[in-house]
Amino acid sequence: MSRVVFDISLSLDGFVTAAPRTAEQPLGPGGVQLHGWLVDHEYLERAVADLGAVVAGRTTYDHSIPGWRADGPSGPARRPVFVVTHEAPEAGTVPEGGVYTFVTDGIESAIDQARAAAAGRTVTVMGGADLGRRCLAAGLVDELSLHVAPVLFGSGTPMFAGLDAGHVALELLEAVGTPETVHLRYRVVRPDG
Amino acid sequence: MSRVVFDISLSLDGFVTAAPRTAEQPLGPGGVQLHGWLVDHEYLERAVADLGAVVAGRTTYDHSIPGWRADGPSGPARRPVFVVTHEAPEAGTVPEGGVYTFVTDGIESAIDQARAAAAGRTVTVMGGADLGRRCLAAGLVDELSLHVAPVLFGSGTPMFAGLDAGHVALELLEAVGTPETVHLRYRVVRPDG
Repeated sequence: MSRVVFDISLSLDGFVTAAPRTAEQPLGPGGVQLHGWLVDHEYLERAVADLGAVVAGRTTYDHSIPGWRADGPSGPARRPVFVVTHEAPEAGTVPEGGVYTFVTDGIESAIDQARAAAAGRTVTVMGGADLGRRCLAAGLVDELSLHVAPVLFGSGTPMFAGLDAGHVALELLEAVGTPETVHLRYRVVRPDG
Repeated sequence: MSRVVFDISLSLDGFVTAAPRTAEQPLGPGGVQLHGWLVDHEYLERAVADLGAVVAGRTTYDHSIPGWRADGPSGPARRPVFVVTHEAPEAGTVPEGGVYTFVTDGIESAIDQARAAAAGRTVTVMGGADLGRRCLAAGLVDELSLHVAPVLFGSGTPMFAGLDAGHVALELLEAVGTPETVHLRYRVVRPDG
């Protein structure tokens, strides 16, 4: 069965954007540093190699599609992407190619559909923070994959504030430091093992 | 000149204690996991080898002295400890041996006195979170040394919330993962280099 990985980049003090966010700087001033590790093509290709399907929130869809290079030779946008949203966007605004499915009946449904599409490969929940917290609280996440940038923002969009999941025990799978980030991968330890 | 290292253990979601804190569980339920890495005597001895002096807040002094094994053959309590406090504790309650100095005129004074005592060796600010934030905001910290336990607490005493220092650029010095923790060491990058 596909494992579900929640993957996100954040500052050392736990912010997934800096403040204030603006139309010109949707990640806030300096926020692009969080994604500086994407220059590490070797790591990225390894991460994407087993990717079967993506689950994303609506804000991630609205802001990140250009960065995903849907027309590129690789990248997550070549995989089926399930966008959790209250309302599907207007027809005609959705990039062609058929990779996008808009899921309006909740995160469990999105994960189920992504699992089916992934056919045993990894399902990656790509953000944002709110979707990640909801998936964690619902017990839908098998692994956390965090990319911790070497910066304190002091304010911004918090990754973990408001997580309503009690204590979540984790097992470290990987800790790799680079100048751009520290990649931390954890298995979520279920009460039943 | 002595470098000043702020050193603290925290959960992956950035809490230095779990909630609720009680007299029986000053670190909150499960909070002792944060310090599980202290069983790693090899790491600890290496960290303490260059330790010249300690700066601690009053809560850390009140709660952690028993755990520091002041009578042991090693451990931070064998070094001069400068406790930042509004009021020195009553005479007679302070452990003998003369390692404790109570500093009532602010964090800069405590750091200055610790530097003088350390004579070129490392000054470690050992907590708590509030003292660390104040030292960071005042530009007094040269290095961050974080020990990130594999657990999400969801609530507790936040390490970074309320840090009033703008963006703080960091340079990764070390990232070492163990089953008990991930040791992350960073240099604080000053605007003037």
